[in-house]
Amino acid sequence: MSQLLRVQNFTVSQDGFGSGEGQTLERPFGHINPMDIFAWAGATAGWPNRTEPGGTRGLDDYFARDFSHNIGAEIMGRNKFGPVRGPWPDLEWKGWWGDTPPFHTPVFVLTHHPRPSFSLADTTFHFLDATPAEVLRQAKEAADGKDVRLGGGVHTVREFLDADLVDTMHIAVAPVEVGRGERLWTSPDELLDRFHLDTVPSPSGVTHLLFWRK
Amino acid sequence: MSQLLRVQNFTVSQDGFGSGEGQTLERPFGHINPMDIFAWAGATAGWPNRTEPGGTRGLDDYFARDFSHNIGAEIMGRNKFGPVRGPWPDLEWKGWWGDTPPFHTPVFVLTHHPRPSFSLADTTFHFLDATPAEVLRQAKEAADGKDVRLGGGVHTVREFLDADLVDTMHIAVAPVEVGRGERLWTSPDELLDRFHLDTVPSPSGVTHLLFWRK
Repeated sequence: MSQLLRVQNFTVSQDGFGSGEGQTLERPFGHINPMDIFAWAGATAGWPNRTEPGGTRGLDDYFARDFSHNIGAEIMGRNKFGPVRGPWPDLEWKGWWGDTPPFHTPVFVLTHHPRPSFSLADTTFHFLDATPAEVLRQAKEAADGKDVRLGGGVHTVREFLDADLVDTMHIAVAPVEVGRGERLWTSPDELLDRFHLDTVPSPSGVTHLLFWRK
Repeated sequence: MSQLLRVQNFTVSQDGFGSGEGQTLERPFGHINPMDIFAWAGATAGWPNRTEPGGTRGLDDYFARDFSHNIGAEIMGRNKFGPVRGPWPDLEWKGWWGDTPPFHTPVFVLTHHPRPSFSLADTTFHFLDATPAEVLRQAKEAADGKDVRLGGGVHTVREFLDADLVDTMHIAVAPVEVGRGERLWTSPDELLDRFHLDTVPSPSGVTHLLFWRK
């Protein structure tokens, strides 16, 4: 089977925002409280950051677990790596993701300010100033036959959608309105010219939207 | 994480039947036409028996693909292996699953008539006359840390439910009535004393039922 570029578990508000206004080191999602939109995933048994046993094993868990299935690399925007803009003032700061990032694969960070690659546990971060098509080419090569996850944020997902490089998307829509920030869409219907869409309401209150290319 | 015993992609009719009446070599599901109940899975990109490219990548595909995720062994009843009852008349006949069975793991077949183990491609069949608890013990050992799939049929699923050994179940309910055969339940509500249940209608017409232990 060919390698896919997949968006997985990307969560937006009812009004289409993937992050709020005013991203800082302490508030990666700006004015949004991340728990307001990620509660659906945090409740599942398969949530990668789960530290205690338990958790649900219903519909939401299928999506939470699918995060890493057959994924060999991730592509992310610079703002998902950290809040720094412009040149890197401190190469010792190694991103938001702690000593054991939840990716466990090569990660390609899009930035106009490349810096040397480094590894944290089994995740290696590479920094590229390149077109979406070129980043995808490198990520697929690194993924060694597996799929590539497009990790976000909103700007990065939009950039790859605009270049028509996305094969499948799982977007969870949380039942909250946030009003401002980085907006993925006004309505998911905007993508129906190019994608099939299954709309799946979960008993937890989120709605899972599953897009695949026509 | 501990090893689970999971039922995956087990499909029943609206009225709860997993197979029809009159199983024969030519008709593994008896009077039921298997396509009537498995069409939902056959339409997906992830269907293990798919030979042509294409297929849907919506909700049904998530379940079809989950069939093998983190599975290290399968347990099945003798009637899922083949239609023969009583002693084996011909050890050269190696079951319904062809030269490359879709399991790709050790498979433990429950039978009162054990026969020697054998391998077909990367699937090895073992034949056990033992209690559900003992078969599960051996399957978990063979699964090497991964989960064990309980493959059916109906009688086998019921046996493990009655022994309270099942951790999660994905049952797809197809929108057809078949009237007679092997019945899993009169209503899924029968299990609600021991299981949580998410009921998820798919745009394709099947309803996915996701059970996990309370």
